[in-house]
Amino acid sequence: MFKTCIIGASGYTGAELALLLQQHSQFDLAALYVSENSHDAHKNIGDLHGFLYEQIDLPLLPLKESDMLALAEEMDAIFLATPHEASHEWMDKLAGKKAVIFDLSGAFRLKDKSVFAQYYGFENTQSAWLQQAVYGLADWHQEQIKQAALVAVPGCYPTASLTALKPLFNAKLLDSQHRPIINAISGVSGAGRKAALNSSFTEVSLQAYGVLGHRHQPEISNYLGTEVIFTPHLGNFKRGILATITVKVAAGVSAEQINQAYQQAYAGNPIVRLRKSWPKIDDVAQTPFCDLFWKFDSQSGYLVITSAIDNLLKGAASQAVQCANLRFGFASQLGLVN
Amino acid sequence: MFKTCIIGASGYTGAELALLLQQHSQFDLAALYVSENSHDAHKNIGDLHGFLYEQIDLPLLPLKESDMLALAEEMDAIFLATPHEASHEWMDKLAGKKAVIFDLSGAFRLKDKSVFAQYYGFENTQSAWLQQAVYGLADWHQEQIKQAALVAVPGCYPTASLTALKPLFNAKLLDSQHRPIINAISGVSGAGRKAALNSSFTEVSLQAYGVLGHRHQPEISNYLGTEVIFTPHLGNFKRGILATITVKVAAGVSAEQINQAYQQAYAGNPIVRLRKSWPKIDDVAQTPFCDLFWKFDSQSGYLVITSAIDNLLKGAASQAVQCANLRFGFASQLGLVN
Amino acid sequence: MFKTCIIGASGYTGAELALLLQQHSQFDLAALYVSENSHDAHKNIGDLHGFLYEQIDLPLLPLKESDMLALAEEMDAIFLATPHEASHEWMDKLAGKKAVIFDLSGAFRLKDKSVFAQYYGFENTQSAWLQQAVYGLADWHQEQIKQAALVAVPGCYPTASLTALKPLFNAKLLDSQHRPIINAISGVSGAGRKAALNSSFTEVSLQAYGVLGHRHQPEISNYLGTEVIFTPHLGNFKRGILATITVKVAAGVSAEQINQAYQQAYAGNPIVRLRKSWPKIDDVAQTPFCDLFWKFDSQSGYLVITSAIDNLLKGAASQAVQCANLRFGFASQLGLVN
Amino acid sequence: MFKTCIIGASGYTGAELALLLQQHSQFDLAALYVSENSHDAHKNIGDLHGFLYEQIDLPLLPLKESDMLALAEEMDAIFLATPHEASHEWMDKLAGKKAVIFDLSGAFRLKDKSVFAQYYGFENTQSAWLQQAVYGLADWHQEQIKQAALVAVPGCYPTASLTALKPLFNAKLLDSQHRPIINAISGVSGAGRKAALNSSFTEVSLQAYGVLGHRHQPEISNYLGTEVIFTPHLGNFKRGILATITVKVAAGVSAEQINQAYQQAYAGNPIVRLRKSWPKIDDVAQTPFCDLFWKFDSQSGYLVITSAIDNLLKGAASQAVQCANLRFGFASQLGLVN
Repeated sequence: MFKTCIIGASGYTGAELALLLQQHSQFDLAALYVSENSHDAHKNIGDLHGFLYEQIDLPLLPLKESDMLALAEEMDAIFLATPHEASHEWMDKLAGKKAVIFDLSGAFRLKDKSVFAQYYGFENTQSAWLQQAVYGLADWHQEQIKQAALVAVPGCYPTASLTALKPLFNAKLLDSQHRPIINAISGVSGAGRKAALNSSFTEVSLQAYGVLGHRHQPEISNYLGTEVIFTPHLGNFKRGILATITVKVAAGVSAEQINQAYQQAYAGNPIVRLRKSWPKIDDVAQTPFCDLFWKFDSQSGYLVITSAIDNLLKGAASQAVQCANLRFGFASQLGLVN
Repeated sequence: MFKTCIIGASGYTGAELALLLQQHSQFDLAALYVSENSHDAHKNIGDLHGFLYEQIDLPLLPLKESDMLALAEEMDAIFLATPHEASHEWMDKLAGKKAVIFDLSGAFRLKDKSVFAQYYGFENTQSAWLQQAVYGLADWHQEQIKQAALVAVPGCYPTASLTALKPLFNAKLLDSQHRPIINAISGVSGAGRKAALNSSFTEVSLQAYGVLGHRHQPEISNYLGTEVIFTPHLGNFKRGILATITVKVAAGVSAEQINQAYQQAYAGNPIVRLRKSWPKIDDVAQTPFCDLFWKFDSQSGYLVITSAIDNLLKGAASQAVQCANLRFGFASQLGLVN
Repeated sequence: MFKTCIIGASGYTGAELALLLQQHSQFDLAALYVSENSHDAHKNIGDLHGFLYEQIDLPLLPLKESDMLALAEEMDAIFLATPHEASHEWMDKLAGKKAVIFDLSGAFRLKDKSVFAQYYGFENTQSAWLQQAVYGLADWHQEQIKQAALVAVPGCYPTASLTALKPLFNAKLLDSQHRPIINAISGVSGAGRKAALNSSFTEVSLQAYGVLGHRHQPEISNYLGTEVIFTPHLGNFKRGILATITVKVAAGVSAEQINQAYQQAYAGNPIVRLRKSWPKIDDVAQTPFCDLFWKFDSQSGYLVITSAIDNLLKGAASQAVQCANLRFGFASQLGLVN
Repeated sequence: MFKTCIIGASGYTGAELALLLQQHSQFDLAALYVSENSHDAHKNIGDLHGFLYEQIDLPLLPLKESDMLALAEEMDAIFLATPHEASHEWMDKLAGKKAVIFDLSGAFRLKDKSVFAQYYGFENTQSAWLQQAVYGLADWHQEQIKQAALVAVPGCYPTASLTALKPLFNAKLLDSQHRPIINAISGVSGAGRKAALNSSFTEVSLQAYGVLGHRHQPEISNYLGTEVIFTPHLGNFKRGILATITVKVAAGVSAEQINQAYQQAYAGNPIVRLRKSWPKIDDVAQTPFCDLFWKFDSQSGYLVITSAIDNLLKGAASQAVQCANLRFGFASQLGLVN
């Protein structure tokens, strides 16, 4: 059993991750932490998240910076379900010690520092860890993840988008003159567990946001290898992302080549499911899966793919567990798929 | 045309009321106010509430206490869609002048001052206005409303509950040993337009609250004339209240007597609709109606009634307009029902 | 007062239309019809649609084909809220008489007969009426509508899409090598009032459908003037459509030119609202508006527009009323906007 | 490993049960059946229920009556997730052989035959099996379940209601002059997987139904031991039941006695969770738990309890697994709670 803890366990992602680790056969969930001045400090996690009531008997301990070094030497794995700024600030106290770090924030996902000022609103000064961090797209970067000291677990939208697009791009099937157009709709849990007018029940109604300026656009473009147009939306549901992606394929590409690209990428992968019909959000909510389906119009050369995930699981917690599984020598899906 | 304004126009009730007054043939909506330090001050109401975009061209003016007296002398009617504490604090500056006051808060609904300390968390020191205030249950208190200087517009739950129960109680059909049991479910807009964790989209899920201690329990009991058990719930919808009320009738009461009580109370009333099947929330959402339907088990003597309203309209804004209509000599439903 | 009736009044669109006509100052709603063998025949419309209870006191009369001629000579306007096949079958009995016909089905929206076999599943044999029918995109085709004997009221998705795209195409701002990519999400009422597994509450969850083969794709392309890629989705809400449209503009096009195109098309139009922020479904649900907002990335030349309407109103019933207003000499928005 | 199969596996309950059995360490899910003329016959269950895609590789076999005997001799346990009529019709072909039968329909829940004609619309002629059937309220009837040849798994509403009420009744805390008043709201999945207008997405809106005449009223009364008033509602959510129960306690009963009654009944029970705050539907959806919380007004003697379950799990599939666990000698919660 590998000893693990979660920092930032009071949020939705932290709660899901806590349950996954608690039920995992190879990881021991030893402790839950929140920031020192959190008003949730010392509460039991089951009192914040009713589904965990009596299931995890751990308090949310306030974590002092002065205790981070000891923690990093005690744990085998530390999961950070913290705000970007907190991950950024704490990383050099936590990383590079005994514990492997799995950071679910966006603070270490990109190598290019300029992105952080523009899209995240803070300057990233952790140059060394930015360079060392491995992007934890678990179905693609297995070899790097197995060696990583710090895994930057991908964002929810990039996970849905890259899983759909990488097979096509890598097989050189995309027309280079047309950017892939990604329209994605996320459930409100993606906004985190907090009081905010724009995520209050009465205010939420299907709407675009962050158009042509969302921080996941450079993340997708960078790990795909080509520019994309990414338009996120907030939907009136709690969990899940549906990404509908329209691409133009290169001249002469056939449906069979598209099919082969997906088969090659995912045949036998228990997490990515190549469906026989258009996936719904409900098919993947509360699951670790990414469901894909596509239709191609050979006359026009346009191809439409939809990709569905649970934003809190495949878009965060279960992908972090996939990464941890890989890093500690287990099958990617251990503890996630029966 | 009577000149009107709304104080507290940035919230959901204020926005609905603004549209009703704007479209009304006899009232002129002259101005919208918010409290002096509101961060919505000087915004256009259509920028806060998308459905009003380009429909009402009025800014939300910050209201200074020093301007209240002049306002009360200028207007024919002032509608207060303000917090209880604000209505309480400002009432002696506004009431008793030219303008008739229609207060949608709870600050003047009850005569018994002890209720305010226990249920509202503040001491009500406006004794004179407490005494003068008329309870604006528009389908029942028409004569008093016509004379009022200050109308305390009822709460949403009391409106749904009293409309269902008053015909039975007044006709002496209720068994006095069994309290009416009121289970009511409200949409989230009832919590107001604000950032709060417990009304955030991801947190909302059908749940009881305020059990055996909600401030609407004394309001219902007082205006019904007998004690009730009132259990409110928050539902996962935006607008509307469904109250399901179970009573035991007095020995020997027949279905025909129950029917007569409702017919006598509401036949010909265009606002209260005696339905032929169980009303749904959607039947009354965005409408000024209160829909009633009931079933009686003569063997056991138990009677179940459901009552459905839109909490923002019949439970607030449209009932306020009913009161204003009555006060200025019009039919109760003017501007509400075609 | 012009005398009107609705055929196919039992569905959601028919019910909305009935209320609009009932409240209209210039149209008299004289009768409601359903097909001869409808199981809703002889019911009161308020018993099917609770929001109309006691509001419209008209039964749903079964319409015999033998009575159609007399009806067409009696009425000034007949609204068909019928299935495509029924409108197709009945048109030569109804059109060309005294009554102007407003057909809300898809049976007469396109001139090209081959579309019907491919996309609608029936052969359109009404050649004469196909030629005479005027496409009722009310904010664009006002002059033709004023003369029409038969108005084919547009589909919901085409209304949302064309309102967003026509200003750009007509101003020659679009790059001709990139098809506009339209992703649209409709509420479930778009599927009509009927029992069907895929629109049952438990089954509905955000999902694409009809990809690269929906019947509204040729309708949009035809009335825009260029091919588009249209991907519809079913969303977990009752009413409304949000269309998110991504286009590449021609080289050198500026934000100012885009702005001018929209201003020129819609400045002063009370139905199409050029918003200052991204519209939500809730801003337009239960309203006759089409709300537009856009963002342009001058570096890449990509432009994203979202367009929001109520599918039952601007996408059907209120646009039919706009058409009738125009046809009978009134302002387009009469009875729709205060 | 005990060999099991499910008859009626195409519905929502069958699908949940299939996943529970598939993941169970002691039961082997050997086959899935549907009725002989089902249009789902020969489909893979993952094509009907997207969450099961690639998770259960079993077709839905059409079951002939002529094969039932052999099946009953081959299996250790047969789960019937069938309509009441089908369970009734097939029981003497299935029960009394090698397999223990777990019937999730209502056909064998009550001993009194007259109930079936009145509430279920068919005459129950299976007198012998009616007598032998054990009511599978798993947290209460453990000893009988351990011996049963046929377990009638309780209805969803009775499970929520009885779990809340039995501790009070058994401890003689209830006033006998006041019937317990049960108001319960169910998600739409309770209506089953089928096309029906009243469960279509657009029609569903919070509403009472089956008032004073629902078939679960006699089931609750019978297994509680006293008459109740039960009012079910349909809510606008997919899964879960919240029952709000108002009772009057006997004179002199204290909060401490109430607390003791619940502690005695459920302390240490991992399925029934005595909460510290009002449970939400979301706390129990997708879980096997029944969550309880209560508040008592000692002055009036009224007590309000809410009880929350997932209708498809604790109200059907997971309670069936609890029963099977007990019957085959395992802990009630095996395979359900970590």
